[in-house]
Amino acid sequence: MRFRQRAGRAPANPETADHEQRQKGRLEAFSDGVFAVAITLLVLEIKVPSGQPLGQALLDLWPTYVAYLLSFGTILIMWVNHHVLLDYIRHVDHVLLYLNGLLLMTITAVPVATGLLAAHAGDADGHIAAAVYCAYFAVVALAFNGLWWYAAVGGRLLHDGGQAGQRSVSRRYMLGPMLYMVAFGVALLSVPLSLVICVALAIFFAWPYQPKSR
Amino acid sequence: MRFRQRAGRAPANPETADHEQRQKGRLEAFSDGVFAVAITLLVLEIKVPSGQPLGQALLDLWPTYVAYLLSFGTILIMWVNHHVLLDYIRHVDHVLLYLNGLLLMTITAVPVATGLLAAHAGDADGHIAAAVYCAYFAVVALAFNGLWWYAAVGGRLLHDGGQAGQRSVSRRYMLGPMLYMVAFGVALLSVPLSLVICVALAIFFAWPYQPKSR
Amino acid sequence: MRFRQRAGRAPANPETADHEQRQKGRLEAFSDGVFAVAITLLVLEIKVPSGQPLGQALLDLWPTYVAYLLSFGTILIMWVNHHVLLDYIRHVDHVLLYLNGLLLMTITAVPVATGLLAAHAGDADGHIAAAVYCAYFAVVALAFNGLWWYAAVGGRLLHDGGQAGQRSVSRRYMLGPMLYMVAFGVALLSVPLSLVICVALAIFFAWPYQPKSR
Amino acid sequence: MRFRQRAGRAPANPETADHEQRQKGRLEAFSDGVFAVAITLLVLEIKVPSGQPLGQALLDLWPTYVAYLLSFGTILIMWVNHHVLLDYIRHVDHVLLYLNGLLLMTITAVPVATGLLAAHAGDADGHIAAAVYCAYFAVVALAFNGLWWYAAVGGRLLHDGGQAGQRSVSRRYMLGPMLYMVAFGVALLSVPLSLVICVALAIFFAWPYQPKSR
Repeated sequence: MRFRQRAGRAPANPETADHEQRQKGRLEAFSDGVFAVAITLLVLEIKVPSGQPLGQALLDLWPTYVAYLLSFGTILIMWVNHHVLLDYIRHVDHVLLYLNGLLLMTITAVPVATGLLAAHAGDADGHIAAAVYCAYFAVVALAFNGLWWYAAVGGRLLHDGGQAGQRSVSRRYMLGPMLYMVAFGVALLSVPLSLVICVALAIFFAWPYQPKSR
Repeated sequence: MRFRQRAGRAPANPETADHEQRQKGRLEAFSDGVFAVAITLLVLEIKVPSGQPLGQALLDLWPTYVAYLLSFGTILIMWVNHHVLLDYIRHVDHVLLYLNGLLLMTITAVPVATGLLAAHAGDADGHIAAAVYCAYFAVVALAFNGLWWYAAVGGRLLHDGGQAGQRSVSRRYMLGPMLYMVAFGVALLSVPLSLVICVALAIFFAWPYQPKSR
Repeated sequence: MRFRQRAGRAPANPETADHEQRQKGRLEAFSDGVFAVAITLLVLEIKVPSGQPLGQALLDLWPTYVAYLLSFGTILIMWVNHHVLLDYIRHVDHVLLYLNGLLLMTITAVPVATGLLAAHAGDADGHIAAAVYCAYFAVVALAFNGLWWYAAVGGRLLHDGGQAGQRSVSRRYMLGPMLYMVAFGVALLSVPLSLVICVALAIFFAWPYQPKSR
Repeated sequence: MRFRQRAGRAPANPETADHEQRQKGRLEAFSDGVFAVAITLLVLEIKVPSGQPLGQALLDLWPTYVAYLLSFGTILIMWVNHHVLLDYIRHVDHVLLYLNGLLLMTITAVPVATGLLAAHAGDADGHIAAAVYCAYFAVVALAFNGLWWYAAVGGRLLHDGGQAGQRSVSRRYMLGPMLYMVAFGVALLSVPLSLVICVALAIFFAWPYQPKSR
């Protein structure tokens, strides 16, 4: 019942509900802050070229642009997923604060993994760069799973109701680490194919899946 | 009366309204975070001169100061416009989160476009730099239009009422991409004239236009 | 209908009060974001020394530490003052958003002015560096005054009541630009004396002055 | 009584209670912003290696990864502690704003201390680096104590009730500076032992300790 979540002015035990809500509010504020800073820092990687002729110099920067678009899109998708995930959560406890922190730590490192890929995808180290990229996203997916399963087991920290939606989230989340590990294996054989899998997974997780009824 | 500001919810279906409001609240918080970081990072471009004599070294930095003022002013105007735009929006859905993300992506890149212009406006590549600057702002204007039209078509995500204000926003927004493309064409002929158009457009969009009645 | 959005509570005209309050809320959130980023970016100036012996290398960095403490303290004092100022404001309009933006622009540049002073206070350009520092803070004080007087004239955007407190703010604010210009003049004669004036002014503005009655 | 803290809907003098709450809200927002920026800036220290072979280059960066994990974990633990601390606080006054600012200042410098340790723990300056690291965390612990004791003495700014929880916080906080000074002394004798103490202290402060009853 959403009713229990928000309103500090409900008749029964308003203090607890209100306190919980504020705890969750600060968790959201801190997380949104980290997402916002991480996604904005990306632009620091794009340096204005000083070489001439300028037109050519701008075109030569294309791997930087691709990395920028990729990092920005990835963090944005993660932000939306984090958003949806927190929507299911009613309680916040100490362990959840730390699991959320671990997740944020993996997210702030997105530009490193993406920059590595952009710098090396086309050279002799392409297999290593793509494998690291895939393995890194498997870790991100694990961090999402850790947060979700801690909250979900026994319905511990979730809202009552919405079981259908929760099962849908659980199924989706389980796929993440497995498929990124597949992509990791593929990267050792074919860099382009592993990136196709990564892009497909990004689109899969970008897709709206929050049940309308909530 | 402060009483009017905060307090306890409406009798009819508060849950839905509350949920929508929180969704929109996180969208605003994330967007404000991105704007705040983007506008504050600008100062990193200004390096304290170590050369001597100091007075001359400070004066020689004038293109940096101009780029700083221009970037700061541009992002500030965009923040106010984003503010006004979101004021018309009642619902937030998945697509809107992504369209908003695309808009934020264009905004975080403002310092790159402005830095390019500041570095090259006076040299042989001035036409290219000014053309890129104008084309870039056409893209920003398109991103604003995408967000607005997605929300506005059929009144999908807007508040009921306020049709006059909505039509006024629609008219203004349509002008943006067109006029920036005109500036783009002009840049190939005359750098100063294209910048005059850009400044005029910035002033146009800075102007308050939110109907008083809202 | 705005009524549906926020879950209107009060009987009489909740829309206006609620709308105003949300506008001010986003202004505060954006401003707090800029302050938080600006104050945290300062640490990027402190580089871990790689030279050896480490003890000496750490001691030699003392001007960096002083600049860090000075910048952090200054921005913190400004944040508290901004806080108190906004507390008097009830309405937010377009012009106020831009005046607030101008103020934030001056605040994000604090590390540049402080870095300049820290780098040159002891060398032949000390008079120039100190004069720029003082002139810069005169500009910050002017920006605070612009925001305040725009809101205060005729009580336009202020809360009703609290006239005593408002007069106290007005008096304090008027002193700022004048005394920083005095420090500017003094800097041309004596660098240490001008800095004593600046520190005294910082302490003056750090002092709590919000009337208890609010 | 939590009742007094929040509610814009209390019958008696709602304005004051609400005003206090907003003051505390901005303190939290600013603090969360600083924490979020500080924790996200850490990733800027990890540079994508350009050397080849890439595999070896990535492995050679391990001290950077350790410093990143250590800094991120430390700031996260401090954020959670700050969170719990503010939960006890009902009033916010001018002095508290500044004491909180001092605390934030020490926290934004975490990456400097950690970077110093990571760069020098294994070389001839290891004793100095570890001693500086421990002394620095003693200062952080002092800043936490300053904030807490100012609020707690005579129950000045705390919520009524919850005395058991408050005494528990007081006891824990007092241990911090003392034990970090012990680690400082140990660092002059044995670098590894001092770091073991630091890690043990981090785990101690990471442990949930907020009484369930609140």
